[in-house]
Amino acid sequence: MSSFQEGKDCLGWAARDASGVLSPYHFKRRAIGADDISVKITYCGICYGDIVYTRNKHEDSKYPVVPGHEIAGIVKEVGSNVQRFKTGDPVGVGTYINSCRNCDECNEGLEVQCPNGMVPTINAVDVDGTITKGGYSSFIVVHERYCYKIPENYPLALAAPLLCSGITVYTPMIHYKMNQPGKSLGVIGLGGLGHMAVKFGKAFGLNVTVFSTSISKKEEALNVLGADKFIVSTDEEEMKTLSRTLDFIIDSASGDHPFDPYMSLLKTNGLFVMVCYPKEVKLDPLSLFTGMRSITGSFTGGTKLTQEMLEFCAAHKIYPEIEVIPIEYAYEAFERMLKGDVKYRFVIDIENSLK
Amino acid sequence: MSSFQEGKDCLGWAARDASGVLSPYHFKRRAIGADDISVKITYCGICYGDIVYTRNKHEDSKYPVVPGHEIAGIVKEVGSNVQRFKTGDPVGVGTYINSCRNCDECNEGLEVQCPNGMVPTINAVDVDGTITKGGYSSFIVVHERYCYKIPENYPLALAAPLLCSGITVYTPMIHYKMNQPGKSLGVIGLGGLGHMAVKFGKAFGLNVTVFSTSISKKEEALNVLGADKFIVSTDEEEMKTLSRTLDFIIDSASGDHPFDPYMSLLKTNGLFVMVCYPKEVKLDPLSLFTGMRSITGSFTGGTKLTQEMLEFCAAHKIYPEIEVIPIEYAYEAFERMLKGDVKYRFVIDIENSLK
Repeated sequence: MSSFQEGKDCLGWAARDASGVLSPYHFKRRAIGADDISVKITYCGICYGDIVYTRNKHEDSKYPVVPGHEIAGIVKEVGSNVQRFKTGDPVGVGTYINSCRNCDECNEGLEVQCPNGMVPTINAVDVDGTITKGGYSSFIVVHERYCYKIPENYPLALAAPLLCSGITVYTPMIHYKMNQPGKSLGVIGLGGLGHMAVKFGKAFGLNVTVFSTSISKKEEALNVLGADKFIVSTDEEEMKTLSRTLDFIIDSASGDHPFDPYMSLLKTNGLFVMVCYPKEVKLDPLSLFTGMRSITGSFTGGTKLTQEMLEFCAAHKIYPEIEVIPIEYAYEAFERMLKGDVKYRFVIDIENSLK
Repeated sequence: MSSFQEGKDCLGWAARDASGVLSPYHFKRRAIGADDISVKITYCGICYGDIVYTRNKHEDSKYPVVPGHEIAGIVKEVGSNVQRFKTGDPVGVGTYINSCRNCDECNEGLEVQCPNGMVPTINAVDVDGTITKGGYSSFIVVHERYCYKIPENYPLALAAPLLCSGITVYTPMIHYKMNQPGKSLGVIGLGGLGHMAVKFGKAFGLNVTVFSTSISKKEEALNVLGADKFIVSTDEEEMKTLSRTLDFIIDSASGDHPFDPYMSLLKTNGLFVMVCYPKEVKLDPLSLFTGMRSITGSFTGGTKLTQEMLEFCAAHKIYPEIEVIPIEYAYEAFERMLKGDVKYRFVIDIENSLK
């Protein structure tokens, strides 16, 4: 660390106000507890949540905000009780670092839905009263329960985006049994989440249709990501040709957009899953009555499925498409993300640029 | 028939315009085909749909409108191919009397969701171009596929409401596996549909909570219908005590109301089913993200489940609560329904009053 300050053992990059401009920031991580591991961070993916919290979009930012919840690194120290990890292990940390560990959801490995105390990795109040600080930093101390083994030979830079964008689409796909070969999946939006939905969909043997507002993504969707069909969602005629043909739709599109035109593309009993975050959900009741269609939402996933997903990705050689950048470029990356100018996830090379 | 007119073999009561006023109307039913049965109608339930079509609420009424799609009667004649019915059988006809009989939905016995040609029992264009006329009439001719055996000893007057209000709540309860003893069900609204949801819920061994805007329904809900709990839905404090406690909610409330306060009462993976028909569905996305809750809609049900429901009701002695009226009282009954002044379904004594 180039600029060590007394007692402040961790160097991060933080936003200090709603400008969202990032700059170096020294702070102290807690001492490692018996169940904790300390992770030297090598890569951290950039999620839209990083923009939300650095720019106070939800008006609840607790500055300084150290963003980053797609963390990959190497175990540098383990607490006395830790069994699952040892020094030198490749490891991931995702979107939350605590929960009550005593409710139905926690007991089922669905800690992200813990109603009593799920603690996000960034901008949240942890059980000790401190504000959580994320992966745009040199290391992090986390209870081992919220850490994941990254399979051997899976590149750490590629593992990072799995911890949020990957698990966010993988969770509903498994939970709602989308992994049935031959079924049809629509994916709205082709960003960090959408492109992973396409990859998982193809790995599950699904017939995948991508919906995008921009024809410019067509070739990549079909030829790089392997989608079966590409539809420009503003083309009403083309949309109509798909009426009642899809079993599932995953909506990863940022920004507000109407739901009804997509609902009509679902078969009887079809399911629409939001993994985006619109301002509101507004539907014609007929969209639900006709064909007994359902709509639901999902964010990230539990520890059990996150670990399973990492192993699934390694076994099936599923890798996110990323652009590796230095930490100095993070703010510029935010700006490009807001313009949709990324294929498909930025990953910060923490190890080599945060010094 | 007191006032027979040449060639017009059927006497009904019809609305002639949007006033919805009903009066006698003679018309011709089609000749019985090889697969048809002719049903002498003895009872017909009054559904809110009858008000919608007699009063042109959807601006698509095809006058004269003969309402009624909760039909119970006796087979008076069968076509040459008919196997399932014989003269004298007690029989029911519900909300639709045709479908394509050649799609996935039809093949699964889910004809009501047939995308190619489900024909409602009232105010619809049948395959022969005629406008369908419902059960406020002396008899009806229907393809046997869309007729149901009413179990022996099940009173016909009580069977009538099962054909719409009964199957409308029974369908999602079976489809979404609400028939698991010990699970918890919320029922919003206590009318023709809601009171059947409570009865089915108790028969399935569920813990049933009724939500109503009116405390006046409390005693009946608990003591007559057997609900376990009654909540006045406008009481925010009482509502909060149920946060995250329900597995399922069935919404049968007429009129528009907010959904979010109810969604928050669902457990993780909880399901909200609309059987009502609001103008629009508007939700905070958090209502779906938190706990991966879902919302869906359902109307009536397929032939397979309708027949099963009738047998279930007979086996478990489940009977709707009804008020039997003469046809002359139907318009007044509509007015009372609009005020919520019915416990819980009007049934017209067609046999004794339509003359």
